[in-house]
Amino acid sequence: MVKIALCQTKVKENLQANIDNAYKMISEACKNGANIVALGEMFNCPYAGKYFSVYAEEEKNSKTIDMLRNLSKEKGIYIIGGSVPEKEDNNIYNTAYVFNPKGEIIAKHRKIHLFDVDIENGIRFFESDYLTAGNSVTVFDTEYLKIGLCICYDIRFPELIRKMALMGAKIVFVPAAFNMTTGPAHWEILFRTRALDNQIYMAGISPARDYEGLYTAYGHSLIVNPWGKIISQAGEGEEIVYSDIDVNIINKIRNELPLLKHRRPEIYV
Amino acid sequence: MVKIALCQTKVKENLQANIDNAYKMISEACKNGANIVALGEMFNCPYAGKYFSVYAEEEKNSKTIDMLRNLSKEKGIYIIGGSVPEKEDNNIYNTAYVFNPKGEIIAKHRKIHLFDVDIENGIRFFESDYLTAGNSVTVFDTEYLKIGLCICYDIRFPELIRKMALMGAKIVFVPAAFNMTTGPAHWEILFRTRALDNQIYMAGISPARDYEGLYTAYGHSLIVNPWGKIISQAGEGEEIVYSDIDVNIINKIRNELPLLKHRRPEIYV
Repeated sequence: MVKIALCQTKVKENLQANIDNAYKMISEACKNGANIVALGEMFNCPYAGKYFSVYAEEEKNSKTIDMLRNLSKEKGIYIIGGSVPEKEDNNIYNTAYVFNPKGEIIAKHRKIHLFDVDIENGIRFFESDYLTAGNSVTVFDTEYLKIGLCICYDIRFPELIRKMALMGAKIVFVPAAFNMTTGPAHWEILFRTRALDNQIYMAGISPARDYEGLYTAYGHSLIVNPWGKIISQAGEGEEIVYSDIDVNIINKIRNELPLLKHRRPEIYV
Repeated sequence: MVKIALCQTKVKENLQANIDNAYKMISEACKNGANIVALGEMFNCPYAGKYFSVYAEEEKNSKTIDMLRNLSKEKGIYIIGGSVPEKEDNNIYNTAYVFNPKGEIIAKHRKIHLFDVDIENGIRFFESDYLTAGNSVTVFDTEYLKIGLCICYDIRFPELIRKMALMGAKIVFVPAAFNMTTGPAHWEILFRTRALDNQIYMAGISPARDYEGLYTAYGHSLIVNPWGKIISQAGEGEEIVYSDIDVNIINKIRNELPLLKHRRPEIYV
């Protein structure tokens, strides 16, 4: 059994304030016994194209990484550092760093699928105007369970979550800033069906909703069990949600309804 | 624009009564202007292992096929003949036949994934004790739109629905007898997420619920649009649900949120 916590933070137009707020909420999650703590997409930077380059930090010179590294070591926990704008050479990536209880970076996911959409009477956003896409699937091991990691729009591609499940991930964390068009319509069913199809846990970590900010995230961070049921969910505002994760439930469900064994890949090609 | 109708029939322990009832409901759907009419899984046979071989008919000598062939020709409609137990040599398949307005069989799907499950405090059922699995993906063309077809448990495999969408299917029909364990938990989110992921319509056709029968199907036959929204849904009992299907909506959504274009298959292998 492992206790996970999702920190739904409000993102402000101030890098240091965002770092401090994340520090405060992670510390609170630790006080409540969390072993793995996760943050939301772009938790240190307003979700607006013009800010990505302004807030972006290089891995070797990052206040955000320093804080997360020190805190994970100090508290002896895993931190899934939501995502941040990462600068490397002349590119900016939407990147999630993972820290182990020794303060080491043990995984790093760069968002693979960039969100380029233009919905009538809804949102228009072209991430590829500002960001460069990653090219790798991210699964890493811990002493509790294997973990998959992707970012926001990545969840819309069932092939990616399936791939992580086949690589052994028993939970997939998805820092994600869904908006007020796609959030109400799709947030819950995407997490629930990915969990159900792959018989894994799914965790979605959103920024808190902020009607006065540049971007209004949907909120409602959630944890879904391998039967597709939401077992913990936040409201709209700043909040930490917790859940105990039991790998035995995965084994039980996979024995009862052996979906992964019943796959017929030779037919799908 | 094409009008589809889903006939949620009650299945009795009498082959001829089931055929007559399907005839009656399809005729009613035609009166109401349907161009494509679909029936539920095993609409002519109680969903119980011991009956499959008793009710099974050979393609060349089938009262069920005769009725559907004649009716589709008489009314000038497409009929997606739910599914029936099909006998060939010494095997029995769970098979869906499709008839065009000339009364010709233009497609035939044999259930690919057999439902072998044993859920604690829930259902225990091993289809493979009685049935043989099919080995082909089924997509066929009509003058309205391309149609995909699979049966019940097949829907649990996202790879299959994706495959049909990539083959050009704009709607997938799924005759399906979900039960009272999996129905409430999974019926809606599976159809909604498959529609959403692939930006197609999905139609699920269940038998009516029958607490006195050998098998209690969930009911709630439904049609979901390419945005993942349920646009028409039955209750538990005998009922026909209708919806107009507009391929232009698919094109619009695929332009706004180009999911299929944004796939990165080189990463998923």
